[in-house]
Amino acid sequence: MAEKPAIPKGTRDFGPLETSRRNYIFECIRKVFRNHGYQPIETPAMENLHTLMGKYGEEGDKLLFKVLNSGDFKSRLPRRAWELEESAKLATRLSEKGLRYDLTVPFARYVVQHRNEISFPFKRFQIQPVWRADRPQRGRYREFYQCDADVVGSDSLLNEYELIQIVDAVFSALHIDVEIKLNNRKILAGIAEVIGEPERITEITVAIDKLDKIGLAKVLDELREGGLDNNALDRLLPVLSFEGSSTRKLAFLSTYLEGSETGMKGLEEINEILDLVGNSLSAKLELDLTLARGLNYYTGAIIEVKATELSMGSICGGGRYDNLTGIFGLKGLSGVGISFGADRIYDVLEQLDRFPDQEEMNTRLLFVNFGAAEVRWILPLLASLRKRGIATELYPDAAKMKKQMSYANQRGIPYVAVVGESEMEKGVISLKDMNSGQQETLSPEALYGRLSERPA
Amino acid sequence: MAEKPAIPKGTRDFGPLETSRRNYIFECIRKVFRNHGYQPIETPAMENLHTLMGKYGEEGDKLLFKVLNSGDFKSRLPRRAWELEESAKLATRLSEKGLRYDLTVPFARYVVQHRNEISFPFKRFQIQPVWRADRPQRGRYREFYQCDADVVGSDSLLNEYELIQIVDAVFSALHIDVEIKLNNRKILAGIAEVIGEPERITEITVAIDKLDKIGLAKVLDELREGGLDNNALDRLLPVLSFEGSSTRKLAFLSTYLEGSETGMKGLEEINEILDLVGNSLSAKLELDLTLARGLNYYTGAIIEVKATELSMGSICGGGRYDNLTGIFGLKGLSGVGISFGADRIYDVLEQLDRFPDQEEMNTRLLFVNFGAAEVRWILPLLASLRKRGIATELYPDAAKMKKQMSYANQRGIPYVAVVGESEMEKGVISLKDMNSGQQETLSPEALYGRLSERPA
Repeated sequence: MAEKPAIPKGTRDFGPLETSRRNYIFECIRKVFRNHGYQPIETPAMENLHTLMGKYGEEGDKLLFKVLNSGDFKSRLPRRAWELEESAKLATRLSEKGLRYDLTVPFARYVVQHRNEISFPFKRFQIQPVWRADRPQRGRYREFYQCDADVVGSDSLLNEYELIQIVDAVFSALHIDVEIKLNNRKILAGIAEVIGEPERITEITVAIDKLDKIGLAKVLDELREGGLDNNALDRLLPVLSFEGSSTRKLAFLSTYLEGSETGMKGLEEINEILDLVGNSLSAKLELDLTLARGLNYYTGAIIEVKATELSMGSICGGGRYDNLTGIFGLKGLSGVGISFGADRIYDVLEQLDRFPDQEEMNTRLLFVNFGAAEVRWILPLLASLRKRGIATELYPDAAKMKKQMSYANQRGIPYVAVVGESEMEKGVISLKDMNSGQQETLSPEALYGRLSERPA
Repeated sequence: MAEKPAIPKGTRDFGPLETSRRNYIFECIRKVFRNHGYQPIETPAMENLHTLMGKYGEEGDKLLFKVLNSGDFKSRLPRRAWELEESAKLATRLSEKGLRYDLTVPFARYVVQHRNEISFPFKRFQIQPVWRADRPQRGRYREFYQCDADVVGSDSLLNEYELIQIVDAVFSALHIDVEIKLNNRKILAGIAEVIGEPERITEITVAIDKLDKIGLAKVLDELREGGLDNNALDRLLPVLSFEGSSTRKLAFLSTYLEGSETGMKGLEEINEILDLVGNSLSAKLELDLTLARGLNYYTGAIIEVKATELSMGSICGGGRYDNLTGIFGLKGLSGVGISFGADRIYDVLEQLDRFPDQEEMNTRLLFVNFGAAEVRWILPLLASLRKRGIATELYPDAAKMKKQMSYANQRGIPYVAVVGESEMEKGVISLKDMNSGQQETLSPEALYGRLSERPA
């Protein structure tokens, strides 16, 4: 009769260890955001569907989770709509709300809705889950957290500088070595101009973006199929095949882009950002002309971060977008932001075995329960340990010693205290160190002292 | 053309101050949970709809937010189902997933699904939002957080004792004076037996639950309409009208319940809990026979908490339930838990003006931006302040002084640093205390010192 319990495809339960580790990541990021003057906001999981529709392309509309209208939705549907319309259209009639797909569109909506309460430039961060009806696969989930920091209302490149500092500080705090890749949408536009195909910037950058994955030959094939002639391809080739340091790339571009005002502007921006950053980073910062993420979105700097010690997709990315709030009627507010991918960062830390020891978060001490009399003796001690900030448990049942010890073991509790008749008589506690196996007899005061020592 | 931005009815945006304050509440609760050996878990926002349906009564089924199936849901509907079926039935065909309605059912599902990885007794906490399609009204939202701690796999009353300790510790930490009310479902069952109406326990306790709101006369009317005869009402009256201390109530009940084994068991439980608690609490703990929350759910202790300094509904509640995981096929696991209502706690703290000063969370220092040269001078200083954990900002644009000062003011930033030509020459910073208006000139080292002082 009983249902076999399970959760929806692409979603996850997080047990105690995973939850603690995830909180460690969020806490690191949150601390750095705050330290750089970003303020937290939260928005609802559900947005009005029309706030979300049309913001992520046609494919994105399909991937929005839509919330079925409550009550008698059937009788509220126009006559014959069910017969005549397709699922996609019917979905917008049956649902007025959708689950948040990212944090950027809700943020834009927030800024416009609350513009009179906000002091601009507005530096906000937001750490919340998002939902996408994507086909689940390894490393891709239908519910996952995003950790975003954005500034709106300032064109200054100091914001780009600052986001790069944030990236550096977060990954330093997490002990992950990273390479930060930098590009600029204006440079990509400049390249399209220089090769005489300014309208084809999207195809060109989509193809460039694949260089890493499919190689130069296939990229050229794709571009040719897309309609680029040999003349344009010849002009493009030096960009695709250029190798060398950022400095050499910049020197090359300063000649290559001369004919494009937009391109030269992009170059100037990159130069200024690199100059502001100087040698202040622990991470490596590199100009990467093949970086073209989210092109339709970004208008200036584009940033992407990869872990250097293992091969994995990007673990953080962002850039400048010039008209995000325009879709909600507030024009002329430039924004720039960065988003940390908590799931990928989790995987990196796990693979590199860089999560901190969880002992600090865990219970420090378990009292064995021998029965009512011993419990009475223990309770005041238990309360006072907790008051001193030492996470302590008393096994709730007077179960067999073996069972209680095995609980301590499985939970990874480092100390077990035994209080029986003889201990009560003498007013002492027998303490067992579960790691070393050593036992000692301590007064309550000495017990406080021992447990207050930081874990080694 | 632009859409007017808004959010769904009953949902909320949280600005920087609200988010910080909410995090303060969550952090206090989380710390106490951990301190008592509870471990965090997280479950997905969406559960399979059949996991949720039927768990909250018929009314609850209606209040579940259902997620419309993705893709071509129309063609997957059985032929003629749309014409023949009502919305309620159609909803279960159009939706396979629903948003979590509380944290208890997902927890039960989690325990059964992961029972082989869990060491019992399992003490878990969970702080996550839940969603209900309730009619929104003052203080009632469609999205709100629950903060739950539960133990499953132990019958010991030490768990009840511990949850009461947790309640006391949380509200002490939050500086809210509370009264903890305690009852026991077995006592309510005993009362129903004693008055000769053991089957009517639900009606009786629902009526008793309303005593506070509608008064004795109306409660008696309701019970009479519900089918209780005068004889039963006469037997019930002493319970309804009894006033006095917990001790006197217990004495009264020890006679009154003599004929009911269940009732006497409940009384014994209450006595043991009160005895374990002794005088260890800051809060007042009272036996309250009119407390009957969530009757169909609880099987033993029932706990409810109210703030004493203002009149508001309960801000925390819980109790013992004996067969929660039974619905998912795992029988015989008793559980007991407590749930904190973050929204109501927020309102209490706000009305009593007990939120801590947010200065600690906020940016401590803003550097005024006079232009590129000054910025270059400031950047290393900015970085080193941040490295020392001092939240610092540099205004990103070289805007008018007035605008920059007004930003600092609106953001509540306590210190503003001015670095112009003369400061750069001398290697000093002019620091303005925004609260006192005082200005002083400091070396970088002296600046670190000043900003490291704790806010008064």
